[in-house]
Amino acid sequence: MTQALISRIFYPAFENAPLLRGDDSAVVEDPGPGRLAVTTDSHIVSPLFFPGGDIGRLAVCGTVNDLAMVGARPQWLTAGFILEEGLSLETLQRVAESMKAAAEEAGISIIAGDTKVAERGKADGLFINTSGVGIIPVGREVGGARARPGDVVLVSGTLGDHGIAVLAARGQLQFEADVISDIAPLNGLVEVMFEACPRLGVLRDPTRGGLATALNEIARQSGVGIHLEEPAIPIGQAVTAACELLGLDPLYVANEGKLVAIVPPEQAGAVLEAMRAHPLGRQACRIGEVIAEPGGRVLMRTSIGGTRIVDVLAGEMLPRIC
Amino acid sequence: MTQALISRIFYPAFENAPLLRGDDSAVVEDPGPGRLAVTTDSHIVSPLFFPGGDIGRLAVCGTVNDLAMVGARPQWLTAGFILEEGLSLETLQRVAESMKAAAEEAGISIIAGDTKVAERGKADGLFINTSGVGIIPVGREVGGARARPGDVVLVSGTLGDHGIAVLAARGQLQFEADVISDIAPLNGLVEVMFEACPRLGVLRDPTRGGLATALNEIARQSGVGIHLEEPAIPIGQAVTAACELLGLDPLYVANEGKLVAIVPPEQAGAVLEAMRAHPLGRQACRIGEVIAEPGGRVLMRTSIGGTRIVDVLAGEMLPRIC
Repeated sequence: MTQALISRIFYPAFENAPLLRGDDSAVVEDPGPGRLAVTTDSHIVSPLFFPGGDIGRLAVCGTVNDLAMVGARPQWLTAGFILEEGLSLETLQRVAESMKAAAEEAGISIIAGDTKVAERGKADGLFINTSGVGIIPVGREVGGARARPGDVVLVSGTLGDHGIAVLAARGQLQFEADVISDIAPLNGLVEVMFEACPRLGVLRDPTRGGLATALNEIARQSGVGIHLEEPAIPIGQAVTAACELLGLDPLYVANEGKLVAIVPPEQAGAVLEAMRAHPLGRQACRIGEVIAEPGGRVLMRTSIGGTRIVDVLAGEMLPRIC
Repeated sequence: MTQALISRIFYPAFENAPLLRGDDSAVVEDPGPGRLAVTTDSHIVSPLFFPGGDIGRLAVCGTVNDLAMVGARPQWLTAGFILEEGLSLETLQRVAESMKAAAEEAGISIIAGDTKVAERGKADGLFINTSGVGIIPVGREVGGARARPGDVVLVSGTLGDHGIAVLAARGQLQFEADVISDIAPLNGLVEVMFEACPRLGVLRDPTRGGLATALNEIARQSGVGIHLEEPAIPIGQAVTAACELLGLDPLYVANEGKLVAIVPPEQAGAVLEAMRAHPLGRQACRIGEVIAEPGGRVLMRTSIGGTRIVDVLAGEMLPRIC
């Protein structure tokens, strides 16, 4: 049965020579010079399909983006499926096709896979792990520890769309919300940013835990403070409305097609221009700056003029959104 | 909570620089010349602990072995955990320590991880995906399509131990079975085999589906037949007894620390000698040979003198043994 799944659903969707060879591991050519980036992410989103995406698109883009966020060019992905007995083949087929489309969009290959089946009630429909390998071109040095006081904080577009879209699909909103998940592969956007600023030092995609968590991580890694301007932070009207009604803070809501960049002030204009010229960065804007003190902290000047600490959440605000 | 898990359990167990940096992907140095091997495996074994191992040791060794089976030197692993709400931290800690020990034994680093939590009843305790990257030294050409008529089929030791050990731990045997899983990282054994025979062409670890499935795959990939001698196939007494009582065929029962090699006849003696000098190959022996016809088929001369076809099973004989 596993053999039939593989040959009927996965091979046609992910057709490529290393996969089709059918050995215990996929073998790919010598990647040439450059360090490697390696990452992994398991996806347990519920429901499997939601406005703007599904678990398959999420699994591909999530891993592509994690690679892009260290300056790597994503190359090869693996996909590990855990199916609950009783999952329809039609569902699996739709997910595989969505993964194929996302892989093409990102320009990567899914070269190795694995399928396990758990008894009914021992898993929830479908879980997908994707792991990935990318190559970091020589000269790129990216990491959360590279923010320096004076640097400018940029974000590529509106925040909170993914988390609210999944909540809405779960029927947890008591009203119609026209919110579509932003899931997208960001590696193309990242490449144009490096063209504009080869010394780009900090990139991060604000997924689980949202912008607040991503910036707190960077502040800690770099030992700097980050100062945000609340009015500058782009949040769509429908997301704002949904968050107000549900008592959620959009700064903590997940995104799957947005990135934060921290760049030296003299290059911020060029990077912003490059981002805005790319389809996934049209609404890019400057939202704050890096400060020396307080180290490890994110502060925000609010719309009404005060300053508050933007802390890390202790629990998870929205479970199973990725 | 995820943050606490990571810093209290996973970081101490998997301590290494790329992981501790805490970026979206782990970054490792330029691997130098050689092709890359990439693989993935999800582990849903039930129960989590069994004689001779646990899900953590299984997850590390399974992926290390998949890399070794294409001639790669395993280097970096990722670990994706899906926890069911309510899993005890003590259990997770034991599994993490077991992974650490297995990683040290195999000489690899776990450089990236991910943790997701599913609600109670939506997963079964703990699932672990491990993906891995290895480097294939220049000159090695290994794959299931490289078996040639006249080649000799070697196996590194007794078959069926892992599958029967897990069954016994599940309480599905009606008697005491002193069977211990054979889980082990095979990359060290593979290296001594390449020293004895640099042109080693076919390696495979007979995991899910056992020896029969592994050899059928190779026969199909190479377009050759494989002829086995039943009396030569090493199977422990306890496994033989358990299989007889349960109506299982040990050729289809999973192994997690054994390999099959197919080598040119003039090098079989040297490879066998090298295997027997290694702790994981002491019971290595010759079990058959590659024949030209019937292509894609595995035949076996049985102990009573007849010849039978060793086919691929349609379903899975023992679910959730890996």
